[in-house]
Amino acid sequence: MNYREILKEIKPSKSERETVHKIAKEAIDYINKKSEKENIDVEAILVGSVAKDTWLSGKADIDIFINFPLEKSEDYLKEKGLYLGYECSKHLNGTAEKKYASHPYIISHINNYDVDFVPCYKIDNANQLKSAVDRTLLHTQYMEKHLTENQKDEVLLLKKFMSEIGTYGSEFKVGGFAGYLCEILILKYDNFENTMQKVSKWKNNTKIDLESYGTSKFFKDPLIAIDPIDKNRNVAASLKREKMAEFVIASRNFLNSDNKKRNEYFHEFKKKIDLNYLISQFRDRKTKIITIKFNIPNVPVDSLHPQLRKTQVSLEEKLENNDFSVFKSDYWTDEDEIAIFIFELNVYKQSKYRIHEGPKIWGEEASSNFLASHKDTSYILGDTLVLNKKREFETAKEFIKFVFTCEHIHIIKVGKNLKETIINSYELNDIKELLNNDNYLNDEANISYFNDFLKFLDDFLNPGQLLKR
Amino acid sequence: MNYREILKEIKPSKSERETVHKIAKEAIDYINKKSEKENIDVEAILVGSVAKDTWLSGKADIDIFINFPLEKSEDYLKEKGLYLGYECSKHLNGTAEKKYASHPYIISHINNYDVDFVPCYKIDNANQLKSAVDRTLLHTQYMEKHLTENQKDEVLLLKKFMSEIGTYGSEFKVGGFAGYLCEILILKYDNFENTMQKVSKWKNNTKIDLESYGTSKFFKDPLIAIDPIDKNRNVAASLKREKMAEFVIASRNFLNSDNKKRNEYFHEFKKKIDLNYLISQFRDRKTKIITIKFNIPNVPVDSLHPQLRKTQVSLEEKLENNDFSVFKSDYWTDEDEIAIFIFELNVYKQSKYRIHEGPKIWGEEASSNFLASHKDTSYILGDTLVLNKKREFETAKEFIKFVFTCEHIHIIKVGKNLKETIINSYELNDIKELLNNDNYLNDEANISYFNDFLKFLDDFLNPGQLLKR
Repeated sequence: MNYREILKEIKPSKSERETVHKIAKEAIDYINKKSEKENIDVEAILVGSVAKDTWLSGKADIDIFINFPLEKSEDYLKEKGLYLGYECSKHLNGTAEKKYASHPYIISHINNYDVDFVPCYKIDNANQLKSAVDRTLLHTQYMEKHLTENQKDEVLLLKKFMSEIGTYGSEFKVGGFAGYLCEILILKYDNFENTMQKVSKWKNNTKIDLESYGTSKFFKDPLIAIDPIDKNRNVAASLKREKMAEFVIASRNFLNSDNKKRNEYFHEFKKKIDLNYLISQFRDRKTKIITIKFNIPNVPVDSLHPQLRKTQVSLEEKLENNDFSVFKSDYWTDEDEIAIFIFELNVYKQSKYRIHEGPKIWGEEASSNFLASHKDTSYILGDTLVLNKKREFETAKEFIKFVFTCEHIHIIKVGKNLKETIINSYELNDIKELLNNDNYLNDEANISYFNDFLKFLDDFLNPGQLLKR
Repeated sequence: MNYREILKEIKPSKSERETVHKIAKEAIDYINKKSEKENIDVEAILVGSVAKDTWLSGKADIDIFINFPLEKSEDYLKEKGLYLGYECSKHLNGTAEKKYASHPYIISHINNYDVDFVPCYKIDNANQLKSAVDRTLLHTQYMEKHLTENQKDEVLLLKKFMSEIGTYGSEFKVGGFAGYLCEILILKYDNFENTMQKVSKWKNNTKIDLESYGTSKFFKDPLIAIDPIDKNRNVAASLKREKMAEFVIASRNFLNSDNKKRNEYFHEFKKKIDLNYLISQFRDRKTKIITIKFNIPNVPVDSLHPQLRKTQVSLEEKLENNDFSVFKSDYWTDEDEIAIFIFELNVYKQSKYRIHEGPKIWGEEASSNFLASHKDTSYILGDTLVLNKKREFETAKEFIKFVFTCEHIHIIKVGKNLKETIINSYELNDIKELLNNDNYLNDEANISYFNDFLKFLDDFLNPGQLLKR
């Protein structure tokens, strides 16, 4: 397997590196000078994959952390940090936008690169942590110290492999492996190919503890990777069991492939998706598809995704409770204006009554109360009093319409920022109506969203396509 | 409550008693003379409710037992017993028919009365029992000895009450209270009204042990009534939990009624059943009704009913296993030519695929075998390999048609005598088709069967109607 060839494609060229580092240096210099002039006690530092030299060509995120002394207040840090970020962005002709993670930061688009300005505290070790972002500096320092030049290349191979099989990224939407976790794997297993070997034999609750802290026994997650700079943290805490499983299966598939096939794992899985074929696949399944499209609130994507998932999962559960058997459900969002729930049902329509169990007949008081309340409808099954209770909902649609009202939305667990927008904007359609007639999705301006939605549907119908080549 | 008035209706008149006892005496005298003449060592004896004076007016079953010495062989007993029965029937201008219970007997229609001639062994106590019918003589003797004249009237009231609420009769079809069990209840509780009081407070596993044998702890049935002439037998062994529960509920309803209402419990619950209203009730339930009509084999009804129930219950179970949710099922038979299963389904149609679970991904061998067998269809859910498996049956009808073939009938537990007749003669219809178009049911010659079937359907739709007035 010729990894050199792949590295040629994925490793940033000399000129890309120069461009990226030039932007970073200009930004850092500007902030450090500006702050000195205005008597703000900070130091701007380059962190993350650019600092560590582990970014994939074309995917540079320039992370500049603005370090404040520990004794400064959070308000001060926020005010001055965002101010310096804005000023720097202006100075470099960027377009700035305020974002929220665990605390606020500035993202600026400068010369086609994304530059993040993140205010944080300057700490020397994990005991001084004030927020999650403070850790990033320590992570950067650790990897700068421990990754060899060769290993940096191996990190690139692993990140690229992860990207193409769909397990890269720790954000909620993916629930996969963070870049830092990839680096830890390479430190543990030395190179990409050995990583594949080892991962192919992973068991549930695999433990990785580079610094031998011995704290892995305190965690119950599928993968436990103790943070080398914080013994009480599992770097893989947000990794979904399913993403870990996908990575394991893909590693086995990779190892069982010849070199030509192996090479394909480092390139995009391309598939032409045909709208009519998608619709015919749904029709073939003889399920009933309900789509619920609604406007999304203006909240950070890190908050949006968990709220969407929670709502969709809860709605599925309640549909099942009402005897509408769900074959599969999922959600999609353009992260811009809309989200869509999709519920694929084995059973969409139900009979009018369900058997409701009352007390056993032996208890005289309980059973006479039950009989009194249900005079003409109760009867005996075995030694239990029962009645044919009218279902509240004969179709899944009736149930959804009932739930998505101010009075009844509490029936499901719904993301706190979604309540209003769902109630006020939701539209129910079957899949064909949605794909062919929806004004938003079929607007030419949203063609990239539409294509992304089609990809989502294709994966909904044919999950796990990315795991093999 | 004027029980005298009710007794006037249900207690055999002097002339009915005379007629019945005249027939019995003539039959017994004939058999005893005939056997003496032919050197057969037997004694004919009147047993059962006529002997005990506990039969309801118009419902006399004249039971004549032909007692053989214990040392005679079963073949001898059968040959000579049936011979004597036939001869006696001929002598009294009856029309005789051979029947099977635990062993064969003759039933003869004489002067509009049913007379049973049952060959049996003459025994003095339960230790000498050779077959179930031998016990009847001991039962008769016990009740003749213990029931007072007043208590015989109370037995009549209880039997009539049981009849009208649908809990009388220990045959499988009903699964209710045998006449002998009614007599035991009156011996225990002295009279009808006290029986109602006591029964209304019955608990599960109620124990009655008239002779204080102390053997009730060996039984687990809902009602345990130790046979006064056989300490190892529960007279209520074949009583269904549901029938016992119905009796308890009806006793409470009775006690809570005024005298006018109470009076109605001793008279037939009359209801005009309208065909179209029945059909509209089914339609209202928004279920799918499948009826399966088929010819019944020529077997005793005591054997037919359990076979029908077993088959229907097993078919329901398998329908559920295939995700066709059954709201209710039951069977009906005219005990002459046909039987009908009725399956009322919440879910009649299913989607094309179901999710089939394979191994967890962690076991490398098991999961690679699974993946190899299901190359293009398997995917990961959580950490489990699964695939969308095509259902064998998308409708309940498809499943039933598949099962009712020589090759596949073994899929269900089917009554041994039913296999052939079901496979060769079954017809599937919805309820409306069956009621309006079936040749057999709509034949004028079968109008009484048709009406009985309508009654069955009415009870199917509205169970427990008989328990209240």
